[in-house]
Amino acid sequence: MGISLGELAVRFGCELRGDPGRTVDHVATLAHADIRSLAFVANPRYREQLATTGAGAVVLDAACAAHCATAALVCENPHATYARIAAVLHPHPAAPAGAHPSAVIAPGARIDPSAHVGAHSVIGEGAIVGARAFVGPHCIIEEQALVGEDVRLTARVTVCRRVQIGARTTVQPGAVIGGDGFGFAQERGRWIKVPQTGTVRVGTDVEIGANTTIDRGAIEDTVIEEGVKLDNLIMIAHNVRVGAHSALAACVGVSGSTSIGRRCMIGGQVGIGGHLTISDDVIITGCTMVSHSIPRPGVYSGGIPLEEAHVWRRLVARFKRLDSLATRLKALERHNSRGPDQEEDDD
Amino acid sequence: MGISLGELAVRFGCELRGDPGRTVDHVATLAHADIRSLAFVANPRYREQLATTGAGAVVLDAACAAHCATAALVCENPHATYARIAAVLHPHPAAPAGAHPSAVIAPGARIDPSAHVGAHSVIGEGAIVGARAFVGPHCIIEEQALVGEDVRLTARVTVCRRVQIGARTTVQPGAVIGGDGFGFAQERGRWIKVPQTGTVRVGTDVEIGANTTIDRGAIEDTVIEEGVKLDNLIMIAHNVRVGAHSALAACVGVSGSTSIGRRCMIGGQVGIGGHLTISDDVIITGCTMVSHSIPRPGVYSGGIPLEEAHVWRRLVARFKRLDSLATRLKALERHNSRGPDQEEDDD
Amino acid sequence: MGISLGELAVRFGCELRGDPGRTVDHVATLAHADIRSLAFVANPRYREQLATTGAGAVVLDAACAAHCATAALVCENPHATYARIAAVLHPHPAAPAGAHPSAVIAPGARIDPSAHVGAHSVIGEGAIVGARAFVGPHCIIEEQALVGEDVRLTARVTVCRRVQIGARTTVQPGAVIGGDGFGFAQERGRWIKVPQTGTVRVGTDVEIGANTTIDRGAIEDTVIEEGVKLDNLIMIAHNVRVGAHSALAACVGVSGSTSIGRRCMIGGQVGIGGHLTISDDVIITGCTMVSHSIPRPGVYSGGIPLEEAHVWRRLVARFKRLDSLATRLKALERHNSRGPDQEEDDD
Repeated sequence: MGISLGELAVRFGCELRGDPGRTVDHVATLAHADIRSLAFVANPRYREQLATTGAGAVVLDAACAAHCATAALVCENPHATYARIAAVLHPHPAAPAGAHPSAVIAPGARIDPSAHVGAHSVIGEGAIVGARAFVGPHCIIEEQALVGEDVRLTARVTVCRRVQIGARTTVQPGAVIGGDGFGFAQERGRWIKVPQTGTVRVGTDVEIGANTTIDRGAIEDTVIEEGVKLDNLIMIAHNVRVGAHSALAACVGVSGSTSIGRRCMIGGQVGIGGHLTISDDVIITGCTMVSHSIPRPGVYSGGIPLEEAHVWRRLVARFKRLDSLATRLKALERHNSRGPDQEEDDD
Repeated sequence: MGISLGELAVRFGCELRGDPGRTVDHVATLAHADIRSLAFVANPRYREQLATTGAGAVVLDAACAAHCATAALVCENPHATYARIAAVLHPHPAAPAGAHPSAVIAPGARIDPSAHVGAHSVIGEGAIVGARAFVGPHCIIEEQALVGEDVRLTARVTVCRRVQIGARTTVQPGAVIGGDGFGFAQERGRWIKVPQTGTVRVGTDVEIGANTTIDRGAIEDTVIEEGVKLDNLIMIAHNVRVGAHSALAACVGVSGSTSIGRRCMIGGQVGIGGHLTISDDVIITGCTMVSHSIPRPGVYSGGIPLEEAHVWRRLVARFKRLDSLATRLKALERHNSRGPDQEEDDD
Repeated sequence: MGISLGELAVRFGCELRGDPGRTVDHVATLAHADIRSLAFVANPRYREQLATTGAGAVVLDAACAAHCATAALVCENPHATYARIAAVLHPHPAAPAGAHPSAVIAPGARIDPSAHVGAHSVIGEGAIVGARAFVGPHCIIEEQALVGEDVRLTARVTVCRRVQIGARTTVQPGAVIGGDGFGFAQERGRWIKVPQTGTVRVGTDVEIGANTTIDRGAIEDTVIEEGVKLDNLIMIAHNVRVGAHSALAACVGVSGSTSIGRRCMIGGQVGIGGHLTISDDVIITGCTMVSHSIPRPGVYSGGIPLEEAHVWRRLVARFKRLDSLATRLKALERHNSRGPDQEEDDD
């Protein structure tokens, strides 16, 4: 099941430098490739490995091609081209159309005959599963939920009632889409649960990571727009909107009713407060606390890199006395008779 | 299946200003309501929408009632009253009593005949499921576990051996209650697993969010008291106690043997160290690191809001040189012959 | 099913001070023990309870033994010895060899006849399950995965295609091992999924916590070496390597291609960036952001303890003006004609 370099060049619009008849059948890193492997270089850092790689062919750009000792598939965006070729060389295992006999499917569910429904899945009344969808083992699709065409619920995915999943979206194991939002009214020191009557609408071409949770809206819906990529263990609270083509790294938490713009990139473990608005094209580096809205595109940060513990303890002690430090500085400025003319401090 | 405003006013103790015969059948936001909708205003910020809303009726307090252009259900705590009415307008779908044929139930389990046990659930030897409990699809209730009356395990909830869940508690999908605590003894550079022989006791009227994990105790039990609300992706370690009516937002981690008081509110992504005691009525804002006990009620914080990356980098660089800054300040104070009399620095 | 102290002393190499014929049948804390209980003291803090404990016997070291009012099992490492004895007193419930009739096992899977496969588990084509393995209910072992001898998948564990789990490893409920790594190529503002063709190799004697996720490698494999202990809700990204006998507390996130050394201890909620190298024998305290490699063993920190909110707000305001503070200090130094000779500031 190899593919010739000639065919790859034509299908993926590359310039081939090398034997069009050579075939490759899997991907590998430059360092561990053999003659049947396809490798790629997107980062010039790896360029020097091009002289010694054993790969049958390498996907790379014109700047790198000169350094390549083996066949080269030259293109503008080697990473994207590699991604497409790798999907051809490593297709998902074939899954037969139809439902496994152990699946429990409500009589009123509408499953496209070309869809696959895996072992022990449960599909509720009124749910719809589109053409060629892959519903892996142990998935739950509750009543009235809608799973679009070519969706891939890999395994053990929970899609709660009335949730909508757009075409070609992939969900990794353990994700929960449409659990109740965290809504409670306070009354005399106790919490009264507020029914969460909205749902979740997930767009097309979205990826949702393992054990990520997306809560249903309180009244209106939580929305994940097309092309959004969510890594593992992310929390999306009720009534959040994540704009198209934004990517959130693992362990991010987004609080209720916050709106994230389009094409944002959010680093790991970022915490975003509720009722905020993040502009389009915002990049937030990892471990940042976002406690106010971000009206303009740009790069934002909030984490402090570690130190050896004894150094760090000293810095923290200094930090905790910053107020005293500022007061002493001001006293000195006054003593030098220059204080009043200086930049004024607000204490 | 609409309900008349007259009936709502009587059942929920509201003063009705408007036509008692008008009926509503669902909830909506003020902005998107129609004549069959019930809306509410708990936040004065939304008061101005009262003039233009299309809602059939609005739940609100006396101060807002004057601004309301449609029927008003006037009460003291509109959020709580709305929560109760919404539960009536949007009941859980009816679930038949009895077990789905695909459920695997040990012969020695005692399931109340009024309980619902969903498809592919697994219930172990000696487990007890109380009256009217809802055990959704794919739940696991291990041996000797106790699930109280009116408990709602929405779907794919794991309740490990001997865990106790109090009446009326709701658990969202993916939660794991009673996995082993993280207990290991060190021996010559290796870890020996310490059997976790305690369990988890969850009180009444608790909510546990999606993919949240509560570990069983090492010897004695982990305890979640009545009325506690836990959001998604929370980690409660072994032997923690969470006091009654406390609410923890998503992604909080609580380390082993820590005790959290009653009526606390813990913001998202807060990290709480082990063996600490947090007083009753403590509020901790999001992203705070809690590394020591909190003996008094109050509001506590520990996160620093983000900046544009170039500004932040500069602040971090300054922070990392705080020690030098303090030393220089002290030198200046000495130079001014005032240093020794000043507040002394501990370096 | 009690065990005599005489037998325990012989089996676990303790010196017994007390009646060898006395039997214990469960473990307890010093404070809540009865005559049938075994307790232990590893922390001198609890030593004073030795005078009043009702325990039948206590595991402790020679220094504590003198304070013990009941039978003592004296050994060098009481915590480790206790762990081993507790495992004998509290064995896992017996699980019959063979597969539950509701399990769905592909014809080409090879399950050792001594293994237990629980209700509703799903095992794919070509998967191998070793001798005495315990596969709890609702586990998924995908095609070509390898589950070693004496592995314990407690319940609802997902082991994706081709993942390897070493002997004696334990996995808590909800863990996902081998979900796709978060790999996307950017192309004109959109993301193209990069097939994740590597897998995950988990060593022997590993523990993986509830709802933890370990992603499969992009091309080569993600590796968890022998003896590693991972707590709950941890994220291990693609191509990470965690060195032997390292322990990671809950809610830690490790970004792609990072390598953690052997015998490291990582505190809760630590966030570790991508493509970093952490040395052997590194300890990182909780809530630390790790944004650069750590080439040397040691203890590292990065979190700032909380304050009352009004104090914290003031500190944050001071922090945000650190640049101005430093500039004013420098101006004072110049004014004193000492600035140029002083340690120079880089602004």
